[in-house]
Amino acid sequence: MKLKTTLSALTLGLLMTNSAHALEYQHVRNATAKVNFGGSTFLIDPYLAEKGAYEGFAGTVNSKQRNPVIEMKQSADEIIKSVQAVIVTHTHDDHWDKAAQEKLPKDLPIFVQNADDAKIIRSQGFKDVRVVGANTEFNGVKLSRVKGGQHGTDAMYAMPQLAELLGDAMGFVMQANGEKTMYVVGDTVWNASVDQALSQYQPEVIVMNTGKAMLEGMDGGIIMGTEDVAKMAKVAPKANLVTVHMDSVNHTTVSSQQMREFVKAKGLKQVAVPKEGETLKY
Amino acid sequence: MKLKTTLSALTLGLLMTNSAHALEYQHVRNATAKVNFGGSTFLIDPYLAEKGAYEGFAGTVNSKQRNPVIEMKQSADEIIKSVQAVIVTHTHDDHWDKAAQEKLPKDLPIFVQNADDAKIIRSQGFKDVRVVGANTEFNGVKLSRVKGGQHGTDAMYAMPQLAELLGDAMGFVMQANGEKTMYVVGDTVWNASVDQALSQYQPEVIVMNTGKAMLEGMDGGIIMGTEDVAKMAKVAPKANLVTVHMDSVNHTTVSSQQMREFVKAKGLKQVAVPKEGETLKY
Repeated sequence: MKLKTTLSALTLGLLMTNSAHALEYQHVRNATAKVNFGGSTFLIDPYLAEKGAYEGFAGTVNSKQRNPVIEMKQSADEIIKSVQAVIVTHTHDDHWDKAAQEKLPKDLPIFVQNADDAKIIRSQGFKDVRVVGANTEFNGVKLSRVKGGQHGTDAMYAMPQLAELLGDAMGFVMQANGEKTMYVVGDTVWNASVDQALSQYQPEVIVMNTGKAMLEGMDGGIIMGTEDVAKMAKVAPKANLVTVHMDSVNHTTVSSQQMREFVKAKGLKQVAVPKEGETLKY
Repeated sequence: MKLKTTLSALTLGLLMTNSAHALEYQHVRNATAKVNFGGSTFLIDPYLAEKGAYEGFAGTVNSKQRNPVIEMKQSADEIIKSVQAVIVTHTHDDHWDKAAQEKLPKDLPIFVQNADDAKIIRSQGFKDVRVVGANTEFNGVKLSRVKGGQHGTDAMYAMPQLAELLGDAMGFVMQANGEKTMYVVGDTVWNASVDQALSQYQPEVIVMNTGKAMLEGMDGGIIMGTEDVAKMAKVAPKANLVTVHMDSVNHTTVSSQQMREFVKAKGLKQVAVPKEGETLKY
């Protein structure tokens, strides 16, 4: 009888562990996602304003269009509910907006890429801002910053003002026992840091920002596009790919519809192009 | 007669060009260097105070020792003379000190790694602060930031406070027509970003910070040491190596004397361990 109880408890424990550890990636909008990972709930790059709340980004393509271009499927309050930590890859408006700054509880842990962003977010009243390094731990989840991304082309970064404006954005990797390793590539073009992260972490889920946002009058994207998805499918053939950061800000030039057509034409079955509000489970 | 004059002028011109373009690296102290490159004079990581001006770095080894530990061979004023631009790899005190902030002309171009350091240095009164990107140009010299360095071990960067304190430091590469390519590695341990820079730029002169500075009670260096010099000699066998950032701050654990002995014992003829004030020509 005692043994039976223990076994039942053990079985229940295992079930609970498994259930708690399912990787759930809910695509909110743009690069915003609510992620259950290793039993905790993370909010990534919260961009929570209502449709049209802001002017378009000056100096970018289609800058007369207001942002966000589309609505979320849930309210910001609903999205924020049950979030235990926030990860902000960089502080550009479409990853950390005024609405997020106003609505998020000020004592939530906010993980950031560096001292600069930490200072900015602390100045907005947040009390628990933490810089992500290598294997920075939160509730048994390891967060590792992927440094060396580049939020635009070499030609753009040759210009000091543009280098400063585009700035730095991190990618990051989430790891936990019994959980698939997830690499969130962030706002970067494909460069050596991406190859390095793929080789170091061997991620099984890779989230890519693929709207190919562009600056007015400059060649090349400041984030990835369709061609990078095809490359990723070749370089990391076993990984599940998630493509986001489309449709939601004025300066993207690849829509999720175009991405779906591209993925279909190329037969890339491992690529998800989630709709707003959709949850992917891995 | 006319031809002769022209040829003389041409010869003189070539001589002047060659002379103007000689790479001269003057080791001032610590990581501070005055560099003639591509016909312009750069000051790198100015740490210009007199011996003992500051307290030792809290939380590091030998923190009771005052910094700088040794004097420069010239006065700060003499060093600053004829400098046309300054490159600051990061704003830790031993690379950008109060003396440098006070003594350097406020209209000198200051090249920095990111918006954070640009903001800090602008707030100190400097009017022409420029973020280094890819092939950022100054007087025909291309400056490229090497991102992704790590100013300590993974264990240190796992801790958010330490990750923030150690922060980011850039390496950079200088390129110009007719000039050897120089890679200043900066305050980093050896990681993938170093391999990537070596492969991308194939530098012929490599400046390494090799004092193996250490934190109190933590294993591992926060910059390179002797073993990294041996590795570099193997990985970049044709390059001239310059080792600096020794003897001058409390927390270094490799002295230039130890480095000289190491280099001699290993037979590494391509490694220079310059004395303060010494000029190396390449």
